[in-house]
Amino acid sequence: MTSLQKKRMSFTPLLPKVCDALDRIAFCGRGETASIGDAGKIKGYFPNTFGRPILYPIERQKRVQKPLKVGVVFSGGPAAGGHNVITALFDSLRSLHPESCLVGFLDGPLGIIEGKYKDLPQKCIDLYRNQGGFDMIGSGRTKIEGDAQLMQSFDTIQRLQLDGLVIIGGDDSNTNVAVLAEYCMQRGSAVRIVGVPKTIDGDLKSPLVEISFGFHSACQTYSELIGNIARDGRSSKKYTHFIKLMGRSASHVALECALQTNPNLTLIGEEILEKKQSLKEIVGQIADLVEKRGNMGKNYSIILIPEGLIEFVIEIKVLIEELNTLLSQGRGEEALSAEAKNTLRFFPKDLQRQLLLDRDPHGNIQLSHIQTESLLSSMVEKELQKRPSFKGKFRVVHHFFGYEGRSGFPTDFDATYCYALGYVATLLIKEGHSGYMSCVRHLTKDPREWGICGVPITSLMHLEVRKGKRKPVVRKALVDLHGKPFKALVQCRSHLLLHDDYIYPGPIQFGEDGSVASIPRSL
Amino acid sequence: MTSLQKKRMSFTPLLPKVCDALDRIAFCGRGETASIGDAGKIKGYFPNTFGRPILYPIERQKRVQKPLKVGVVFSGGPAAGGHNVITALFDSLRSLHPESCLVGFLDGPLGIIEGKYKDLPQKCIDLYRNQGGFDMIGSGRTKIEGDAQLMQSFDTIQRLQLDGLVIIGGDDSNTNVAVLAEYCMQRGSAVRIVGVPKTIDGDLKSPLVEISFGFHSACQTYSELIGNIARDGRSSKKYTHFIKLMGRSASHVALECALQTNPNLTLIGEEILEKKQSLKEIVGQIADLVEKRGNMGKNYSIILIPEGLIEFVIEIKVLIEELNTLLSQGRGEEALSAEAKNTLRFFPKDLQRQLLLDRDPHGNIQLSHIQTESLLSSMVEKELQKRPSFKGKFRVVHHFFGYEGRSGFPTDFDATYCYALGYVATLLIKEGHSGYMSCVRHLTKDPREWGICGVPITSLMHLEVRKGKRKPVVRKALVDLHGKPFKALVQCRSHLLLHDDYIYPGPIQFGEDGSVASIPRSL
Repeated sequence: MTSLQKKRMSFTPLLPKVCDALDRIAFCGRGETASIGDAGKIKGYFPNTFGRPILYPIERQKRVQKPLKVGVVFSGGPAAGGHNVITALFDSLRSLHPESCLVGFLDGPLGIIEGKYKDLPQKCIDLYRNQGGFDMIGSGRTKIEGDAQLMQSFDTIQRLQLDGLVIIGGDDSNTNVAVLAEYCMQRGSAVRIVGVPKTIDGDLKSPLVEISFGFHSACQTYSELIGNIARDGRSSKKYTHFIKLMGRSASHVALECALQTNPNLTLIGEEILEKKQSLKEIVGQIADLVEKRGNMGKNYSIILIPEGLIEFVIEIKVLIEELNTLLSQGRGEEALSAEAKNTLRFFPKDLQRQLLLDRDPHGNIQLSHIQTESLLSSMVEKELQKRPSFKGKFRVVHHFFGYEGRSGFPTDFDATYCYALGYVATLLIKEGHSGYMSCVRHLTKDPREWGICGVPITSLMHLEVRKGKRKPVVRKALVDLHGKPFKALVQCRSHLLLHDDYIYPGPIQFGEDGSVASIPRSL
Repeated sequence: MTSLQKKRMSFTPLLPKVCDALDRIAFCGRGETASIGDAGKIKGYFPNTFGRPILYPIERQKRVQKPLKVGVVFSGGPAAGGHNVITALFDSLRSLHPESCLVGFLDGPLGIIEGKYKDLPQKCIDLYRNQGGFDMIGSGRTKIEGDAQLMQSFDTIQRLQLDGLVIIGGDDSNTNVAVLAEYCMQRGSAVRIVGVPKTIDGDLKSPLVEISFGFHSACQTYSELIGNIARDGRSSKKYTHFIKLMGRSASHVALECALQTNPNLTLIGEEILEKKQSLKEIVGQIADLVEKRGNMGKNYSIILIPEGLIEFVIEIKVLIEELNTLLSQGRGEEALSAEAKNTLRFFPKDLQRQLLLDRDPHGNIQLSHIQTESLLSSMVEKELQKRPSFKGKFRVVHHFFGYEGRSGFPTDFDATYCYALGYVATLLIKEGHSGYMSCVRHLTKDPREWGICGVPITSLMHLEVRKGKRKPVVRKALVDLHGKPFKALVQCRSHLLLHDDYIYPGPIQFGEDGSVASIPRSL
């Protein structure tokens, strides 16, 4: 065990004041909720859980508690802080009743379906306090879909006599929370299924869900590296660095890292869609940057590219949507529209192959496998060769940061945020609310002043096409072009093109006193 | 400026006790030195500077000092700590005489040749204390070779009336120190040219040069990321991670990172050469690992690959040497031997192209541009397809870590080591020694107990083929297969294949009290 692991084990996250005495808090619902879109259809899918109110905490007299038995599972890719949700569940359940217990389902939702789990005693819990990764119980991407899997999951819940099940996951996993909650309620079970908003992508958010956990730690890790590379650029003055950042469709990660490091150019997918920018225009924009800087003697630039960029380029968006639909129907690219065929032909050969062959388990194109950064740099190179006005040099280095930011030690912010999320999940279970997401709010304040609430997951849903069919899902939140973070970027970006105002955040530093020194700029 | 930048600015590195009173130390030479190889030839190239003794510090009575004027330059790729060499030069020169001054040559040795420099006043110096990068004065790769460049450099030195010139660089840059020192001495100049051992690659070392600066910071940065990825592997259990690490030919970086993180497999180029392992054998070794783990249900592995690996594979070594020679003669691959042609054909098409086209300014193959990690993984995939005994899954993620580790904040170790190196450089100049390298020793002890000495650079030289000609150069130090670090790897590696004893070092933490908590394992 490293010295940092030991040091972090003894860190005690601050808890919102409101959670100081769990046994004297209840929830009070205010008003009915609808869904984000397609309310009628969503209500049809979720007759028992649709329309429930947002829950806010209220004080009440202490009551005698009975022990609770709760299961917990990680769903999807790791995000820093997950272990703290579990340690908080453990601590909060024990604080309510010393005989409460926690079991962890192994390797993701498949563990629920197959009934594979392990008990999580104090000894195990203490080893994972403020540690990165999801390795205490593992994670997986299986979805609980279809009657067979739902029934098996229900059986596991019944057999283990769970009072509650906490699913720690992203948008799709929280869709699963809603589906399973509805299913169990329809069968008369009193089990409470609760979701916790996890994803480094930052695309699970709403007015009440201010941010997903893991986003801050990932962005801080990437920003350390981007800052280092920017400093390297200014030192050796040789390379144009194309840095692609994980984050699926939405450009939250790229935006947050841009605000943390001040690169010369940051592409934001949502803006490209809004302005209907073509691939050619994007390439022109980068070439302009490289030319202007090169002609000033600056043969180096830092360019951030969100992983999901090409989804937002209108001609590619059309192509990908057609392909996703065709391939889900078992048809090939011959059936593409003439326009889409044209777009496909415009791509280098190996990228064509990637688009056609590389699918994720949901049948979708694996965006993280598409080398957008080399696609762009090779097109920029061609463009610059056509410009006699360009007097500089164009040498490229590609980077892709993703996996290295998912399982690191959580920042003080994520460690503290996750610990609070775990407490709220316990509260929701204790108070009998199913199909809800654990929420912690007012995150720009001191952690002791953070607020808490419960949000019905159906209120975050709408219909989306998946494998060619319209399905009820939690909506991914894209970058809001009218929001503060994007406006902050817009305000400085013309200046950053030619000036090197790089910021060097350096490696994440951890505090010891429980204060949270650094929070996401995106809040 | 980030909070970490400010915090680091006020860090005060400990200084070896022996440097406490610079004006009462002199150097005493012990014995003559030869060169590491080809002594006769090297002596011919360096008639004035060859054979000088190793210099050890001795106390002597305080003398009146006159002000010194010293130039400093960064040469080659950035390495964390470089700014501390400069701040130490400034502080030590000023401590000897308040009118001493320091000038920085801009953007590498070209700044010397062209006489481009800037004064480095206190105000500038203070901004860069314990900061990463080389951006105070920039760096560059120009070599001072050939009469014209030597003469121009000599002119600059004369015109500025420099008492000393400190070249901060790797093996080739220290070769330059020797060449320029000899040149100036032949012309009767009293200027002292001094080298400082810099390179993240760790390949500039000798019994007295225990390590180059920047190596520790780079390896700690990479180890943070490798640890994160290993934890991610254990959490999501999905991918075989091929992690290539910068470091040119030698495998020091891979070895150090292996000792810091315990990956499942680490390839060491020097061992592959020693055992004459073929590419096929290496691929077989990786496939064995993936098969055994996959069949245990572990569809994840962490594999470290040194950037220079393929240079050590005997059939590829032959090919690269032939190519380097042919291309330096302006001839094409048609003139390759039959054996080398065969090897070349064995490669995927795009890698063939890389080998033939991509050359560095010295005419050598750009190893960091060759995607060894994808070459290996695609060959492993083919191999696994042939094995019906393999029951697991093989999904690959590639990583290359290099640039992100060169310009980060120096670790406490590198910050302290560099500060001492700068003091020793000043001492060498004050005492009139030219063609020497600044050395700080006993680095496993407390910094106050560190020793210092001066090493004649000719003693580190031998002849090597460059652009088809035998030239006197400082020898790159490869991993010593009988040394402690490699033996430490050998001792645990069979265990690490199947067990996940990953270590998670996490982000570099900085101290405040001047103590050095973490030092390289390779020491």
